[in-house]
Amino acid sequence: MIHFDCDYMAGAHPAVLQAIVKNNFTQTSGYGADDFCRAAKAKILDVCGLDKDNSEVFFMVGGTQTNSTVIDGLLDRTQGVVAAETGHINVHESGAIELSGHKVLSLPSRDGKIDACELETFVKNFYADDSWEHMVAPGAVYISFPTELGTIYSKDELSAISKVCRENNIPLYIDGARLGHGLAAAKDLTIKDIAKLSDVFYIGGTKMGALFGEAVVCQDKTRLPRFFTLMKAHGSVLAKGRLLGMQYAAFFEDGLYFEIGKHTVRLAMRLRSIFESKGYRPFIDSPTNQQFFILPNEVIDLLLKEATFEYWGPRGEKESKVRFVTSWETTDEDIDKLAELL
Amino acid sequence: MIHFDCDYMAGAHPAVLQAIVKNNFTQTSGYGADDFCRAAKAKILDVCGLDKDNSEVFFMVGGTQTNSTVIDGLLDRTQGVVAAETGHINVHESGAIELSGHKVLSLPSRDGKIDACELETFVKNFYADDSWEHMVAPGAVYISFPTELGTIYSKDELSAISKVCRENNIPLYIDGARLGHGLAAAKDLTIKDIAKLSDVFYIGGTKMGALFGEAVVCQDKTRLPRFFTLMKAHGSVLAKGRLLGMQYAAFFEDGLYFEIGKHTVRLAMRLRSIFESKGYRPFIDSPTNQQFFILPNEVIDLLLKEATFEYWGPRGEKESKVRFVTSWETTDEDIDKLAELL
Amino acid sequence: MIHFDCDYMAGAHPAVLQAIVKNNFTQTSGYGADDFCRAAKAKILDVCGLDKDNSEVFFMVGGTQTNSTVIDGLLDRTQGVVAAETGHINVHESGAIELSGHKVLSLPSRDGKIDACELETFVKNFYADDSWEHMVAPGAVYISFPTELGTIYSKDELSAISKVCRENNIPLYIDGARLGHGLAAAKDLTIKDIAKLSDVFYIGGTKMGALFGEAVVCQDKTRLPRFFTLMKAHGSVLAKGRLLGMQYAAFFEDGLYFEIGKHTVRLAMRLRSIFESKGYRPFIDSPTNQQFFILPNEVIDLLLKEATFEYWGPRGEKESKVRFVTSWETTDEDIDKLAELL
Amino acid sequence: MIHFDCDYMAGAHPAVLQAIVKNNFTQTSGYGADDFCRAAKAKILDVCGLDKDNSEVFFMVGGTQTNSTVIDGLLDRTQGVVAAETGHINVHESGAIELSGHKVLSLPSRDGKIDACELETFVKNFYADDSWEHMVAPGAVYISFPTELGTIYSKDELSAISKVCRENNIPLYIDGARLGHGLAAAKDLTIKDIAKLSDVFYIGGTKMGALFGEAVVCQDKTRLPRFFTLMKAHGSVLAKGRLLGMQYAAFFEDGLYFEIGKHTVRLAMRLRSIFESKGYRPFIDSPTNQQFFILPNEVIDLLLKEATFEYWGPRGEKESKVRFVTSWETTDEDIDKLAELL
Repeated sequence: MIHFDCDYMAGAHPAVLQAIVKNNFTQTSGYGADDFCRAAKAKILDVCGLDKDNSEVFFMVGGTQTNSTVIDGLLDRTQGVVAAETGHINVHESGAIELSGHKVLSLPSRDGKIDACELETFVKNFYADDSWEHMVAPGAVYISFPTELGTIYSKDELSAISKVCRENNIPLYIDGARLGHGLAAAKDLTIKDIAKLSDVFYIGGTKMGALFGEAVVCQDKTRLPRFFTLMKAHGSVLAKGRLLGMQYAAFFEDGLYFEIGKHTVRLAMRLRSIFESKGYRPFIDSPTNQQFFILPNEVIDLLLKEATFEYWGPRGEKESKVRFVTSWETTDEDIDKLAELL
Repeated sequence: MIHFDCDYMAGAHPAVLQAIVKNNFTQTSGYGADDFCRAAKAKILDVCGLDKDNSEVFFMVGGTQTNSTVIDGLLDRTQGVVAAETGHINVHESGAIELSGHKVLSLPSRDGKIDACELETFVKNFYADDSWEHMVAPGAVYISFPTELGTIYSKDELSAISKVCRENNIPLYIDGARLGHGLAAAKDLTIKDIAKLSDVFYIGGTKMGALFGEAVVCQDKTRLPRFFTLMKAHGSVLAKGRLLGMQYAAFFEDGLYFEIGKHTVRLAMRLRSIFESKGYRPFIDSPTNQQFFILPNEVIDLLLKEATFEYWGPRGEKESKVRFVTSWETTDEDIDKLAELL
Repeated sequence: MIHFDCDYMAGAHPAVLQAIVKNNFTQTSGYGADDFCRAAKAKILDVCGLDKDNSEVFFMVGGTQTNSTVIDGLLDRTQGVVAAETGHINVHESGAIELSGHKVLSLPSRDGKIDACELETFVKNFYADDSWEHMVAPGAVYISFPTELGTIYSKDELSAISKVCRENNIPLYIDGARLGHGLAAAKDLTIKDIAKLSDVFYIGGTKMGALFGEAVVCQDKTRLPRFFTLMKAHGSVLAKGRLLGMQYAAFFEDGLYFEIGKHTVRLAMRLRSIFESKGYRPFIDSPTNQQFFILPNEVIDLLLKEATFEYWGPRGEKESKVRFVTSWETTDEDIDKLAELL
Repeated sequence: MIHFDCDYMAGAHPAVLQAIVKNNFTQTSGYGADDFCRAAKAKILDVCGLDKDNSEVFFMVGGTQTNSTVIDGLLDRTQGVVAAETGHINVHESGAIELSGHKVLSLPSRDGKIDACELETFVKNFYADDSWEHMVAPGAVYISFPTELGTIYSKDELSAISKVCRENNIPLYIDGARLGHGLAAAKDLTIKDIAKLSDVFYIGGTKMGALFGEAVVCQDKTRLPRFFTLMKAHGSVLAKGRLLGMQYAAFFEDGLYFEIGKHTVRLAMRLRSIFESKGYRPFIDSPTNQQFFILPNEVIDLLLKEATFEYWGPRGEKESKVRFVTSWETTDEDIDKLAELL
């Protein structure tokens, strides 16, 4: 059986796991106050081109937790967060943002992305409305890179969104659950650009080959005051925080994080060519490790005998939408085998 | 250097870590819907003497997260949770309970424990008060076993609390962050008793030798309806949930969890004898792996050269309170070495 | 100057005010535990055709408070409330629903209304989605009668929505801030129908001629357990609750509430005929006391010299959208005067 | 029957009610954006000796609402509010503070008051604790003047508390539900002192002879940014906000507010002398309009035939604690009559 369900089905990339195993008996302080975390944070800031004095890195365990804690930190009680209708925080996090007391203000999804002009219009219209004081103000903007549909922003698109945010003094927060996959697919964007154009973003670990873990990078640390305590109140502080430091050190010591992204994207492009060569269209044009196709139901049934992937609903009576995802564990042999099956 | 700061300074017990390592490449579904979790849950229910049809196990990552999610699940919007003034949820969780909208109703701490009679009086007085509808009703009772001060309830004490709870239809929730240490010290209480006398409790992993993880056991699963969604909203669902299943399977396959508790308690008793033989009094009579002493400041300075432990504040001008904790990693040699230092 | 801005610009209808004045020196218990409230509640249940044993009435002060308290009472922590995109709770209550921890799940607005079929599809799709446990479940349905755009549901439309709700065991909550205006305009709906087809609704006072006040009617009182305490926690309990009882008694003793609705709707229809006779189109077909027109900007400027009304934004360069509202205080002379101005 | 249950049993002081009645037909904008509110706010700032440019007044409807909205405005998400154990927010507001996500950090009650030294020690100990980042930080201090037990702070006591607050940059908030009663009893404190020594306080209306209403006075308005929106989200904005402006104008135009306080305190002192002359001791030494006595049960039974007052619980078998409250409606004849009954 070959697996294309998602990118968090296995454990950790061997180098990441090894970082935990080899330091297992070392004793450190808890809650992230250890040298592993300090070293990993310094390395991350360096990779992001950020300044140690003004910027800060916070480690958390999972994506929903990270989103809800960061957004709660960025907003005051009267503010909401702007997101695409399809944004993860708006759909698949069980209302974690609302549980913290904040509204998600949704914009149309353009293949998972928001549009800078529509964002600008939204903000302008908000303050032009006489009754804006009766409404939830946009207090942060959330985008995901790549989006939940595998798409990515170009540098121009991201710069335009960043510009609107800064002109309106609204922090821009980027959910980078699959950041490495996105960066590998990007033609003109680096992690330094992400760090510069956003106010806060996170470098996803779970979906990139960590056992778990997300690294929040905050350009101007005064944006998130008393954030450790807020994390604790959200249940987002890991007792053995060192585990996060160890994994992120492994990711960024020699560029492993970026290598994994290149690997998954290369295999995703191979996979896509194979489907296209058989005449199967993607229904979203994703350049990253998530690939979306419309397949005849009989082809799906055939594939399911030897492969796993995600069903995304019917399209008419004879076809269905499906998603294939590549991960650090996917091999060229897996793709070859899939090619044979088709 | 020998370490007695706390019981979460190292990684995982080798057998627990090995369970993760050996299954690293196996692919499974996410969010706990995998065979490792299913097997571990079945094993836990079996060890607790609970029935698979009516009871349920939920895995979470850390203690604060577990407490705030479970308590939010047990209470309605008008209810609070009763706890000892010294209870972890009342002091050291950054207001996680309140962030979820609930009040902690505090009772006096009797060396970290609450008293069944005082609980009964509290509940009786509450409903006897004419203005009770203007007040926060006791909707759950929280105790820790062992407590934050290392003490444990006897079977009689726990039964008395359980009785008050059941007579008043208030669920009893036991924070078992250090459950294994407590059970090893208990003269007349087993995990089956804990399961039977409580409504919900958790079997702590982080402080017992897991990388992370807490297993919530709920006797009557209708107590926590739609709980997966609530967990998700609290950011308490781990994507690679399998990691929790693997660790708990390792804990309970052959009784490792209980062995670790016996180990830490045996060493804690050795440590205590050594201090007492030198004339140093414990200021709390703890039978578990946390030991609390009053030491002359010069002794503390001496010890600090070769050992780490926790400072708990001054006692007069020449003495201070300190805490020593044993863990799965502590060895007889560590205790021997400490004896030499004194 | 004649006023058509809204229906809460003046104090109270003289009969309602008189009820407060004449009982000013009577001493009663606070918080609604008085005979005025008891009598008003009994009268309301009677008018609604509801049974005193199973049903209950709760008085609150204002609309946002009522919506957020009732919806918080109906939902559990993992549930959201379905509403039209244009619904008051989704737009103009500063995120009061989210502040209580709940998401508003929006459906398309059909002139302010939701459609029973779209609601049914929404609920069906929700539970058909494999990842529904990661999503906010529809736990209540919110509609307004009349809507924020002055439109009303027919009996068939309301029955269809009620049917979908009951088949899916989702309580239907009707915001009746302007209920009296709506009932006067309804061809086939009475307050008894509203009471029967909804699970909870409120009889708006503030916009119907009370100084303030909204009366929540709950068909099956077990739907809102411990609701007084929840009201108190939301700051929704009025100390001198009697003021609400007095006003509602005045409203319902001799049908004044319904008379006021007939008055405002009759004048609104006169106003509409006048505009239409001059060739000005309404842009929403509202049968109630809110009327929406597109007027040339020069006409607006002319009218503003002697009348006040609400500006709803531009329509092209030469026209704008405006809203005229009639209230208990509007007179036939006001309408005559407006006719002369045009 | 003569009534001493509480100070909110009747409607409004005639002059206050008259202010509403006489302006009933005037049309104004809603939500407090009217000339009545503007005038009342200016008058209040003037009476308080505060500057119009830096200070602000906000009107709300009731006490719990005011407390929960103001405290939510003063705190960030990681902070709690310090209050006496007996403080209204800690006991009788159904957990409204916690519903907003904040913890009440309780200090011992010294007859309803907190002590400046104990407050200072609490704050010092908090930041001296190594694990303070895991704890809820004191973000505001709440006191009531008079307290729930009728007692008041002297100028020295209040100054000492204010000093601790300012040295630690913690805003001081005074619940003045019964402010007028307290000021009349104070030997050395004026409303200007209250305004100067606090950061935010409210001038209670409900218990001083308004139909309803509380006026929040904020010395430095940047302390409560975007506060209108927060009020709206809390359901604390009254649609016909003018009613609050009218009432407060009546209170402060000619010193009526202070007159009412003098009246209730004078009668309370008469009442107290009568009880004391019969040998009945007060169990709290209250100088304000609430008086607390221990009476033989047979005396209570006798009095209950012609008077109402509040039962506060038994004291031994033959005596009970009771509370008598005077209000704007209490007359010298009521006191005479009570004297005859004894």
